[in-house]
Amino acid sequence: MVKCALCVHLIYSDIVQRSREELKAIRETNPGLKPTLAIIQVCLCIGLNVMQICLPRQCTEEEVSDAANSEKQIRVSFLSKSVRNAIKPQKDVDGIYFFCNTPLDAPLIGKMAVLVGVEGPLKATLQFLLQNNGMMVQTCQWSSKHLQKQFLGVVCYFQQQRAMLLCFRRDIWIDHRSDIEISRAQTPKPISQLAQEVGLLPEELEAYGNTKAKVHLSLLNRLQHQPNGKYVLVAGITPTPLGEGKSTVTIGLVQALSAHLKLNSFACLRQPSQGPTFGVKGGAAGGGYAQVIPMEEFNLHLTGDIHAITAANNLVAAAIDARILHEATQSDKALYSRLVPSVNGVRCFSPIQMARLQRLGINKSDPSDLTPEEVRAFVRLDLDPEKVTWQRVIDTNDRFLRKITVGQANTEKGNARQTQFDIAVASEIMAILALTDGLADMRARLGRMVVGSSRNGQPITADDLGVTGALAVLMKDAIKPTLMQTLEGTPVFVHAGPFANIAHGNSSVLADKLALKLVGEEGFVVTEAGFGADIGMEKFFNIKCRTSGLKPDVVVLVATVRALKMHGGGPNVTAGVPLPKEYISENLQLVADGCSNLKKQIQIAHLFGVPVVVALNAFKTDTQAEIDLVCRIAEASGASAAVQCHHWSRGGRGSVELAQAVKKVASQKNYFQFLYNLQKIRTIAQKVYGADDIELSPEAQAKIDYYNQQGFGALPICMAKTHLSLSHMPEKKGVPTGFILPIRDIRASIGAGFIYPLVGTMSTMPGLPTRPCFYDIDLDPVTEEIKGLF
Amino acid sequence: MVKCALCVHLIYSDIVQRSREELKAIRETNPGLKPTLAIIQVCLCIGLNVMQICLPRQCTEEEVSDAANSEKQIRVSFLSKSVRNAIKPQKDVDGIYFFCNTPLDAPLIGKMAVLVGVEGPLKATLQFLLQNNGMMVQTCQWSSKHLQKQFLGVVCYFQQQRAMLLCFRRDIWIDHRSDIEISRAQTPKPISQLAQEVGLLPEELEAYGNTKAKVHLSLLNRLQHQPNGKYVLVAGITPTPLGEGKSTVTIGLVQALSAHLKLNSFACLRQPSQGPTFGVKGGAAGGGYAQVIPMEEFNLHLTGDIHAITAANNLVAAAIDARILHEATQSDKALYSRLVPSVNGVRCFSPIQMARLQRLGINKSDPSDLTPEEVRAFVRLDLDPEKVTWQRVIDTNDRFLRKITVGQANTEKGNARQTQFDIAVASEIMAILALTDGLADMRARLGRMVVGSSRNGQPITADDLGVTGALAVLMKDAIKPTLMQTLEGTPVFVHAGPFANIAHGNSSVLADKLALKLVGEEGFVVTEAGFGADIGMEKFFNIKCRTSGLKPDVVVLVATVRALKMHGGGPNVTAGVPLPKEYISENLQLVADGCSNLKKQIQIAHLFGVPVVVALNAFKTDTQAEIDLVCRIAEASGASAAVQCHHWSRGGRGSVELAQAVKKVASQKNYFQFLYNLQKIRTIAQKVYGADDIELSPEAQAKIDYYNQQGFGALPICMAKTHLSLSHMPEKKGVPTGFILPIRDIRASIGAGFIYPLVGTMSTMPGLPTRPCFYDIDLDPVTEEIKGLF
Repeated sequence: MVKCALCVHLIYSDIVQRSREELKAIRETNPGLKPTLAIIQVCLCIGLNVMQICLPRQCTEEEVSDAANSEKQIRVSFLSKSVRNAIKPQKDVDGIYFFCNTPLDAPLIGKMAVLVGVEGPLKATLQFLLQNNGMMVQTCQWSSKHLQKQFLGVVCYFQQQRAMLLCFRRDIWIDHRSDIEISRAQTPKPISQLAQEVGLLPEELEAYGNTKAKVHLSLLNRLQHQPNGKYVLVAGITPTPLGEGKSTVTIGLVQALSAHLKLNSFACLRQPSQGPTFGVKGGAAGGGYAQVIPMEEFNLHLTGDIHAITAANNLVAAAIDARILHEATQSDKALYSRLVPSVNGVRCFSPIQMARLQRLGINKSDPSDLTPEEVRAFVRLDLDPEKVTWQRVIDTNDRFLRKITVGQANTEKGNARQTQFDIAVASEIMAILALTDGLADMRARLGRMVVGSSRNGQPITADDLGVTGALAVLMKDAIKPTLMQTLEGTPVFVHAGPFANIAHGNSSVLADKLALKLVGEEGFVVTEAGFGADIGMEKFFNIKCRTSGLKPDVVVLVATVRALKMHGGGPNVTAGVPLPKEYISENLQLVADGCSNLKKQIQIAHLFGVPVVVALNAFKTDTQAEIDLVCRIAEASGASAAVQCHHWSRGGRGSVELAQAVKKVASQKNYFQFLYNLQKIRTIAQKVYGADDIELSPEAQAKIDYYNQQGFGALPICMAKTHLSLSHMPEKKGVPTGFILPIRDIRASIGAGFIYPLVGTMSTMPGLPTRPCFYDIDLDPVTEEIKGLF
Repeated sequence: MVKCALCVHLIYSDIVQRSREELKAIRETNPGLKPTLAIIQVCLCIGLNVMQICLPRQCTEEEVSDAANSEKQIRVSFLSKSVRNAIKPQKDVDGIYFFCNTPLDAPLIGKMAVLVGVEGPLKATLQFLLQNNGMMVQTCQWSSKHLQKQFLGVVCYFQQQRAMLLCFRRDIWIDHRSDIEISRAQTPKPISQLAQEVGLLPEELEAYGNTKAKVHLSLLNRLQHQPNGKYVLVAGITPTPLGEGKSTVTIGLVQALSAHLKLNSFACLRQPSQGPTFGVKGGAAGGGYAQVIPMEEFNLHLTGDIHAITAANNLVAAAIDARILHEATQSDKALYSRLVPSVNGVRCFSPIQMARLQRLGINKSDPSDLTPEEVRAFVRLDLDPEKVTWQRVIDTNDRFLRKITVGQANTEKGNARQTQFDIAVASEIMAILALTDGLADMRARLGRMVVGSSRNGQPITADDLGVTGALAVLMKDAIKPTLMQTLEGTPVFVHAGPFANIAHGNSSVLADKLALKLVGEEGFVVTEAGFGADIGMEKFFNIKCRTSGLKPDVVVLVATVRALKMHGGGPNVTAGVPLPKEYISENLQLVADGCSNLKKQIQIAHLFGVPVVVALNAFKTDTQAEIDLVCRIAEASGASAAVQCHHWSRGGRGSVELAQAVKKVASQKNYFQFLYNLQKIRTIAQKVYGADDIELSPEAQAKIDYYNQQGFGALPICMAKTHLSLSHMPEKKGVPTGFILPIRDIRASIGAGFIYPLVGTMSTMPGLPTRPCFYDIDLDPVTEEIKGLF
């Protein structure tokens, strides 16, 4: 709860409930006085600097003006002691603001509609808001309804029993609310309204409740002649436990572009895994005044895409083991008669079986024509249980599934084997969802997924298992991006969220393409890459852009003073323990040293020919000298601009400077290029990570030979490296040099379409901490409100 | 495809494509003739008895009439040979019907709107249909838009390329289409329209696309003073591989009640598991002309409830193993400081931790006040890994997960243990969803779930793990029933689908309660119990009704002549092999013998004081003598009525007689009673199954003692017995006698609120066959149509 809003609420309750007789006496002295006026007066008494006023409709402007300017009839002493204690002014409340918290059912308070001391545009806007039942209508260029940029912080909500209107001005807004409280305090626009504002047709929308909707891909066809907007990637310096805030920068930037620069803009974000939601705190919806709402929907089931991926992935896994069992326990003939049964006396191959026959070089369509050898080749995938690479997945942090033995029941007749579960977002199907450009392409990629090798070394695909169509059916809704909105009512696509490690860690190509059409030529699409720029951005360029054919215009590189200090050699931090003083007081030397990492990441972007704007995500503890130093070094390192941002505390208004810089840089010509012409692990290691060379393990070398032999050699590279350092050593901060990058093994996502070298070890299944955050998550069974979710 | 619709299509294509010149010649002879008229004429030639005619708008009624009555200019010989072969009249097409299949983009064919030879009401209805873009508007009493009952079979759809209008009359409708083709041929009403028709307010609805919506539980509050409608349970005789058709009877019955008797009625169905959808053919949406549409939505993700259950179930599982690991590797002090951390210098217990302290008898609220012994009791659940009863679940038929070893990675430090996955619908959370009466109750039940025992024998609950609130959050949307519709546009709730074996196999109490309010006092709610009446109905009465407090009015007991023959000693059947002749030709002796099972099931219903209507689900191969025999025996056995039904082939019209019988019986007074006053396994075994006695294994006896000692002795019983026989021996058909029912073990679903004795062995994880039906399932990437799903 906002401290000061709470104060007003307490004062109000105290006045209304405690003092009918006293209030009556006061009213007799001053007939125009109403409880709300009394609140204003008490607020003034306790030092709350009232700037604008919203009052009940039945007051005239004159009455209000009189009351506000009159002698203060109601003093703090009028309030009960407990309230007086509660409303002691806060030291850090140093801005000019106002709010008014009125129960809608209070007899004296009607619909708030009279605004005093408010300039014309704001007044009109607020009146509009009120007439529209308190719904927030801040929108962008697509519609005519947007708030004036000097008054950005209108937060207005009508809940079951209460109406609250908060307006604030200037840049100061001190708030102690949690992300979920801020999210819930905002009533989202109906998703159909947002869709209409951005130019979607009703038939292109599939609502999932009132705050989420899937968007049909037919839009791409309808807008095929519309030029694309500008394409902005938000990337970060090498991550530290202190966090950098790429998601909040992304959202703050679109809020600033939309609501303040009046440019159409869309944020394209990844759907977060549910695993961390219940494990270690940290949402993916942004935070503070730069987040996607409702954040609980964003962080929970959303529209079920990850569940669909889980179902599809595990159907493949079940098909693999069942097939191994069936082949181990049946003759060729029995397999053939079951795989190609006689239905009403007719035997025929299904289309997916015809495809397998073609791959086997058998050009026959009548099942009775096959020779015994051909039957054997057809019915036996002959999967080597030791060489099954497909894993089951689950969207839960379940560490006990990292290594398991399956098939131990008697019914499986001794076919037990060791395998593992990965977190669902690590599924190749997630990577495919993120890279596909449509239903037909997705279906084809799903069929190409290699799930293991036969005993004679041939790759076995999902298509060989006969499961391609079923996978496409399971994924038919997941392929449509989900439309949501930011806290300021600007549009967001949430779609796909592949692991940034063994996959490429970027949201979907389809969402970006839809958004680029919707914003139009002058508009902006801002998307985010996982991890640091050396990983997420490199994969964005080399894998995502290679697949989509889209060219980025600007990279926004996010840094914080704190994280730079850690790269400069600052001490380690531990969760739950207060931050070492280096991070909360000025230390220019650490900042300067840490900027080596920032500089290196800028250089990496320049390798691809894309200009960089550095966004310094400012914290209260940063000093001006520190901020200036970072900006100076960033510009000296080749950044086109370097600006500080305050979106977390101020929403879009806090990112206007960033938005202006991005707009300016995006209008300049750039020369995007891929870093390598495929299959160049060494190029990435040397040019991006700064390694002296790479070292291939025997397994890795064997895999390279095998993949080349299978014709997969032309696929792009998706490095699976720790995100905590530019090197393979997580503890090496800043810009490590003089190291050899070891390639432990090389794996392939043939359906998604990339090869992923494993650099060192990494876990694809997070664990739960001793006190998982589910301890704090609960639901009020009456109001249905969720508590404790971030 | 309907055989005859196919004919017309072939004729049409042949005429239009083959014969521009010939057609031109014919037209010159007869200027009014159009291709559609030619079709009618050819239809008449080949013996298709055209009854009503729909024609392009540009034809006048006179033109059409003339063409139909004129000399037949076009003869069959005019058609190509392949078409002539294809359209040979079917012997079993013996009704009077009409249809017209026209490509919408055919130049000569506009929107069909002229109807010839049609009586007033039908004509008006069809015109309305056409004006409304072919949408089916057959509704029930709730709205004024319903079709005349004599014309029930209007199936009208406009697809991308084609429009088809099928109308038929009388009781004859021969159709060779698959369930999914029938489902897709019908355009569902917009779900918002259906909701409005049944009296839901817009704010009580949460759309999931246009054909599904979740309904808010607040409705129960709004309609709290509304009297309940009649409550009808559909149960079956002991199942056989031949199927009985409970779901189709359920849907046919509501279609008949709604559209034909003009009574408000609701079907309440279970959500099917996705496992069988991709394993062994057989949907749960009903079939033929008695099904829920769109059936692919029904059978796939629906609104994600099962996915939510999977996520919640597996979060508990992950929490259990992680907790065992953390307790094994940390001191009391370390555990305590992590479980109750200092946040900004303050340590406090969360509400869920306070609840655990209370259960431990520790009445302290300041973490620093606990003694070391109390800290130890608080931080150590001391779960015995051997006594963890909670299993992971997955909604896939994955037999290799029936018995597995988890925790084999080095990170789990030797804490490997053997466990298993169940199919998701077997989760206790599913049983809770089905039995709960609201959010608060669900949260409480989730917290009470016993997941295992401590080393000193105390039950450990989900609440002890701290996970209750998170589970409630994951389940917050799943608790709302999903509204869908039947093929005739009547309302259906789909909600919960617990395993009928280790759980109670009935759809949700909440859906029934909502529906009973919505239909009103004169209306009907028809719900279905899994398996045979000895299992599903017994559990419906003793568990579901005990929990809900609702009293059933009528039991509809479903039987088929074929299944009764098998109970009477008929030979076994094998999938894919033609049926033995006993099942396709008359055999009165087998029928008479098999009616013993029917009689026993009627008697079971009477034990509970509920009257029975027998619904004989008729097949084409049943003879009138067989049908009469079953009805005679059923009535002699005490059934209030026994009627044959033809809903599969005729929709609601085929179940009107059943609907009338149900309506009549429901209006009579009945004397519903529970069979036992809890904890009476022997009562069920003797009175329901007909066993001489029960025999408890030592494990079962020990469990009874343990559960009594833990205070769980008062919970109702959920027998986990084979559904294929009244006894525990699946091969014993009819009414087995003279057997002792062995109770192998007894388990408990404390959260759901029942004890389940295990009678013999059973699998909670189905497998995939050699040729799973996913081979036939596919998606057209262009039209997005699903193929091969049932």
